[in-house]
Amino acid sequence: MSTHTVGLIMNGVTGRMGANQHLLRSIVPIIRQGGVPAGDTLILPEPLLVGRNSGKLEAAARAAGLTRWTTDLDSALSDPKLSLYFDAQTTLLRAEAVTKAIAAGKHVYCEKPTAVSSAQALQLYAAARKRGVKHGVVQDKLWLPGLLKLADLVRRGFFGRILSVRGEFGYWVFEGDLVPAQRPSWNYRREDGGGIVLDMFCHWRYVLDNLFGRVKAVSCLAATHIDERWDEAGRPYPATADDAAYGTLELEGGIIVQLNSSWEVRVRRDDLLTLQVDGTQGSAVAGLRDCWIQPYSATPRPVWNPDQPNPIDFFAGWQKLPEQKSYDNAFKAQWELFLRHLVLEEPFRWDLLEGAKGVQLAEAALESSRSRRWVQVPELGAP
Amino acid sequence: MSTHTVGLIMNGVTGRMGANQHLLRSIVPIIRQGGVPAGDTLILPEPLLVGRNSGKLEAAARAAGLTRWTTDLDSALSDPKLSLYFDAQTTLLRAEAVTKAIAAGKHVYCEKPTAVSSAQALQLYAAARKRGVKHGVVQDKLWLPGLLKLADLVRRGFFGRILSVRGEFGYWVFEGDLVPAQRPSWNYRREDGGGIVLDMFCHWRYVLDNLFGRVKAVSCLAATHIDERWDEAGRPYPATADDAAYGTLELEGGIIVQLNSSWEVRVRRDDLLTLQVDGTQGSAVAGLRDCWIQPYSATPRPVWNPDQPNPIDFFAGWQKLPEQKSYDNAFKAQWELFLRHLVLEEPFRWDLLEGAKGVQLAEAALESSRSRRWVQVPELGAP
Amino acid sequence: MSTHTVGLIMNGVTGRMGANQHLLRSIVPIIRQGGVPAGDTLILPEPLLVGRNSGKLEAAARAAGLTRWTTDLDSALSDPKLSLYFDAQTTLLRAEAVTKAIAAGKHVYCEKPTAVSSAQALQLYAAARKRGVKHGVVQDKLWLPGLLKLADLVRRGFFGRILSVRGEFGYWVFEGDLVPAQRPSWNYRREDGGGIVLDMFCHWRYVLDNLFGRVKAVSCLAATHIDERWDEAGRPYPATADDAAYGTLELEGGIIVQLNSSWEVRVRRDDLLTLQVDGTQGSAVAGLRDCWIQPYSATPRPVWNPDQPNPIDFFAGWQKLPEQKSYDNAFKAQWELFLRHLVLEEPFRWDLLEGAKGVQLAEAALESSRSRRWVQVPELGAP
Amino acid sequence: MSTHTVGLIMNGVTGRMGANQHLLRSIVPIIRQGGVPAGDTLILPEPLLVGRNSGKLEAAARAAGLTRWTTDLDSALSDPKLSLYFDAQTTLLRAEAVTKAIAAGKHVYCEKPTAVSSAQALQLYAAARKRGVKHGVVQDKLWLPGLLKLADLVRRGFFGRILSVRGEFGYWVFEGDLVPAQRPSWNYRREDGGGIVLDMFCHWRYVLDNLFGRVKAVSCLAATHIDERWDEAGRPYPATADDAAYGTLELEGGIIVQLNSSWEVRVRRDDLLTLQVDGTQGSAVAGLRDCWIQPYSATPRPVWNPDQPNPIDFFAGWQKLPEQKSYDNAFKAQWELFLRHLVLEEPFRWDLLEGAKGVQLAEAALESSRSRRWVQVPELGAP
Repeated sequence: MSTHTVGLIMNGVTGRMGANQHLLRSIVPIIRQGGVPAGDTLILPEPLLVGRNSGKLEAAARAAGLTRWTTDLDSALSDPKLSLYFDAQTTLLRAEAVTKAIAAGKHVYCEKPTAVSSAQALQLYAAARKRGVKHGVVQDKLWLPGLLKLADLVRRGFFGRILSVRGEFGYWVFEGDLVPAQRPSWNYRREDGGGIVLDMFCHWRYVLDNLFGRVKAVSCLAATHIDERWDEAGRPYPATADDAAYGTLELEGGIIVQLNSSWEVRVRRDDLLTLQVDGTQGSAVAGLRDCWIQPYSATPRPVWNPDQPNPIDFFAGWQKLPEQKSYDNAFKAQWELFLRHLVLEEPFRWDLLEGAKGVQLAEAALESSRSRRWVQVPELGAP
Repeated sequence: MSTHTVGLIMNGVTGRMGANQHLLRSIVPIIRQGGVPAGDTLILPEPLLVGRNSGKLEAAARAAGLTRWTTDLDSALSDPKLSLYFDAQTTLLRAEAVTKAIAAGKHVYCEKPTAVSSAQALQLYAAARKRGVKHGVVQDKLWLPGLLKLADLVRRGFFGRILSVRGEFGYWVFEGDLVPAQRPSWNYRREDGGGIVLDMFCHWRYVLDNLFGRVKAVSCLAATHIDERWDEAGRPYPATADDAAYGTLELEGGIIVQLNSSWEVRVRRDDLLTLQVDGTQGSAVAGLRDCWIQPYSATPRPVWNPDQPNPIDFFAGWQKLPEQKSYDNAFKAQWELFLRHLVLEEPFRWDLLEGAKGVQLAEAALESSRSRRWVQVPELGAP
Repeated sequence: MSTHTVGLIMNGVTGRMGANQHLLRSIVPIIRQGGVPAGDTLILPEPLLVGRNSGKLEAAARAAGLTRWTTDLDSALSDPKLSLYFDAQTTLLRAEAVTKAIAAGKHVYCEKPTAVSSAQALQLYAAARKRGVKHGVVQDKLWLPGLLKLADLVRRGFFGRILSVRGEFGYWVFEGDLVPAQRPSWNYRREDGGGIVLDMFCHWRYVLDNLFGRVKAVSCLAATHIDERWDEAGRPYPATADDAAYGTLELEGGIIVQLNSSWEVRVRRDDLLTLQVDGTQGSAVAGLRDCWIQPYSATPRPVWNPDQPNPIDFFAGWQKLPEQKSYDNAFKAQWELFLRHLVLEEPFRWDLLEGAKGVQLAEAALESSRSRRWVQVPELGAP
Repeated sequence: MSTHTVGLIMNGVTGRMGANQHLLRSIVPIIRQGGVPAGDTLILPEPLLVGRNSGKLEAAARAAGLTRWTTDLDSALSDPKLSLYFDAQTTLLRAEAVTKAIAAGKHVYCEKPTAVSSAQALQLYAAARKRGVKHGVVQDKLWLPGLLKLADLVRRGFFGRILSVRGEFGYWVFEGDLVPAQRPSWNYRREDGGGIVLDMFCHWRYVLDNLFGRVKAVSCLAATHIDERWDEAGRPYPATADDAAYGTLELEGGIIVQLNSSWEVRVRRDDLLTLQVDGTQGSAVAGLRDCWIQPYSATPRPVWNPDQPNPIDFFAGWQKLPEQKSYDNAFKAQWELFLRHLVLEEPFRWDLLEGAKGVQLAEAALESSRSRRWVQVPELGAP
């Protein structure tokens, strides 16, 4: 068995998501397992960590059992042995660095949002096509076990005609005064690229498009419920970005989607993210890992009678799906597909155009919130 | 102890709600308990059932242990011993009958929607004021134990500042072919006054106004998910009315409400109606009878890590409120207050103006759905 | 990153508390983690163990992975590279050794009680101030997770107005004949500085002062329930010290505290130490690590009816607080704060004056027990 | 089998305790069971209800299935067929009525407190002895199943030497604004004979004297934690009586008792009243109906180590006592003994002297609270 090495520049993996999901749970396990199997070949990434803070880079490399890191992105981009550029920086820095990488002829794989405007996101796509490099965008939620089970149900026709989708995402992110916040403070500052609409609607776009049908229109109300928070150093700061978004969407086929995203909600549901799908033949509720179904024949027939305690246990009437497959980490699963795309020319449809669609939906949602009306989401093509 | 009798015309109590909630669970128990205690007096209703179908009337009277019924509304209205008119007919018939009753100098108490347009609903209010009769509108959900518990939490300041309210109402109403439908077929025909927006937004108005703050604006998408159903006789008919409504509302104080109403949803939640309230100091989820709370200090601190089964049980972290009071049937509770209002001159704020506000919100929601934009809900006064 | 070393004399760490809590669970882990982070510096203690028994010292050093120990306290105190003196000897020996250390210009950190009388304890405080050295006293219970959770509840205003605190401390300490005793025999001999009042009221003072309000007066009944015990060598001895204390205290703000301390009680409660706090808006019960709450709205409404098994489960109506933070060993947490105080000049309010307050309360409690009346606890200042 | 009827004047059974415990759960069941078996005879009470409000009397009689009631106490007392006078009026009215009944030659049985001062209580005892009538005082808690089980343990020597008793009585009595109060408002007004010390220390006296040993001295702090409440008509009133009492007592034999009584405590324990008894050979915790034990051999050996979750489940190590006997209602049990005393000359030691001892302890407790010192409780004899 031969080994095909891929020199990989990893930029921005000292942050929470970059370090945990991409470095420690994707690339390191791929290296430890000897590479991604691809026919007779194993595709082995050889990462060079890039960042701005040498102390953090050294620590990240040590934690990953790696030795190579640098603060000099330009020299990394000029090294011909490094063929792939990965970017997990904060959103505001992404487009410029990806543009440079494309210009240097690197293939690119990057986190979402790919840019802060759909115009900029489309330019990245156009640049990559023009330069002829391969490109991909992280769309990890598609590989969550709960959503994979949902996708299987759709594919099998379990739902009959799908009527509606209800999504609840979020949890209580502490303000940071008495209890430390679970998320970085820049998420709550608009001026630093924060905001839940920009963060989450990039996800919603690919989830909805891939599972249920193309998004056609959106109505959204973005809110900033908590306007003072405490940062990593314990200092109060004004929270200027939206921290909750109440959305309604229309998909192809007349499916209506109601989607709440919030960092100020206490969770009384199956998981941090739940999607309920109702169809003529049955319904399902998916969390991050599990999925429960209620087919037509198992649907109870409640009658409105609030005089008495309801005789139906509305949780017991659902069946939890068994594990018919084993599921890898969602980020790692997509990394493996991208590395195969790089080496084997396998198709990979989660590219910079798809990434731009995510930014487009976030933009449309914010526009809807400002103008207090529905906003259409037209088909997106190369500029 | 003296007894004060109230001659009561009950129109439309052969239907489901009228018979069950108003006749059998409100008026009959009040008669059996000897009347409504009011200082040294017992207020005793003496009902005369009125309707269009003598067979149904006779059956309803017999089921209630009563003997008096008639199909002649006009002669009932001309009887000076009958001082109170109650209306639970279908919506399309209500305004005309209530208007006649007011003209005859009767006090009126009636179901919602009071009319099919807010203009007409306001005319009823103006007519009652002009004629000097007392008036009330059924707003039963305010006396549901679950919502009373929620109201107590608001009053005690449990939530701190309320940020948002999420409401889910509905269940799967069977189409009627294989499984009999749980609701009358006219509910699904626009031409007969059906539709979930007209039905439910009258409720949402008084629930939101009374519990959280005045409704200021609404965005709503009404849908007809199932367009063919089978009626009481087993015959298929086109379902022309909206059967689901996806609403977002703004209240005074910046509270945002997200409210789904649907007869095509399978229930995986605590009850047929659930309201989740999130505030800076705590959250609550109320069903029809029960209520669960999670104060700030008991709020878990989840971290996003979909790699592993979530270590937090998101249902266990809520505490079910104990029964600190005993609760009567919600309809009966409001009937008793109205009868005391009639005899004792106690204030009663759930009147025809409040009823008109419900119709106003339903109207605004339908207008929003048509125009695909937010619609303001101005303060309502006498025309 | 630079390292700032602190030469540390540890006297009395061959005993149970000194060895386990201070040496093995505080200083050794601090050394293993590379020191206490303090900006760009790591504060690294370099301990020299001091004691009277060379065999025990050698064993303690070996267990800790250390090499330096001596039985010559005076020469240790004369070494200028050792800047900090720590004392965990038995109470009777403490004041003299601490006084010597202060005279030698060492900073001091020591266990409680700091002395056997408040006059002596205040002299230590005065001497330290005069000599200009830094000083601290162990008040470990403030960093117990259960009490930290309680302190957060107080800070958030969870209780409304606090009415009362009930404390139960203790467990069955075996007499030592058939089952070996869990505590050293000197604890049960007055002539050796034993007694539960002197031991525990030093703790109660800082716990009450810091969590709920300044102690103003105390009523206490000290008892010796078991007057014969068996020592470490299996020999019977007369137990002359108090082994149980029944106390009532008044705090600023009218809060009443009822506190039992006993080594002759069998435990049917949540933990070895439990504090129940009742306030107008809610109550909490804290153990060493966990804390349960019952807010007003979740307070059951029991009715006295001993005819029938009580329908309320009085344990189920409480909610266990989730882990919103991670907690280090309580002793280690305070050690780290003291080391930062030493190097960074950060304030540290748990000093020899606070230590003297603990001795003052123990003294007042014993005086109350002798005179069978309430004893006031005046504000304490430098002598 | 012959029947011996006892004409019984019941005064004050329209109140909560009188109606529920004495009329409906004691006298009515005794009548329904045909009387109290006493050798060949059945002792059958024939009650005449006496009170001040004819409406309430009529309702109480009807609820009990009785027909005889009067508002004229004097004529009842002059009826020779009525030989027994029972009093459950509010405390302020009791002594005068009992004195009249004794003067009329009636045997007397009455609720506690028998009077508002021990001097007055002793006069009742002296008057009854002088007039030669039989007398008894309700001491119901002695017949609670939980306390009967405790008494059996004492009798069997289970505890070895008893060292201490811890008592917790109370629960949250709602203020009456949002949640209706569970107790009558006069309990919270000193001017109406209210107060928890007067109410509960009468109970504590006979419980302690009978179960563990004679009370020798008391230290008590009485408090009024909540000073505004809402009465039965929903009107706010100042709560002037003590609503919590923190007591410590010394019994014969050196037993120390710590006793909290409170109407402002939330319950996290086995029952509304719990008594924990610790002895050299074992401990027990009794609630109203159940009792748990932990003998010496089953006593765990906890070690103080708050670093880690405690490995011992402190509730699991206790054994719940099985039901070895069946237990009747506590009030009814004592009624039956008193009726047998009346007819069969059986001894009955719970008499007016015992009742006076209860008032004596309440008085001493209040005196201790005022003078802030221990108060002796001397032996009580006839004046």
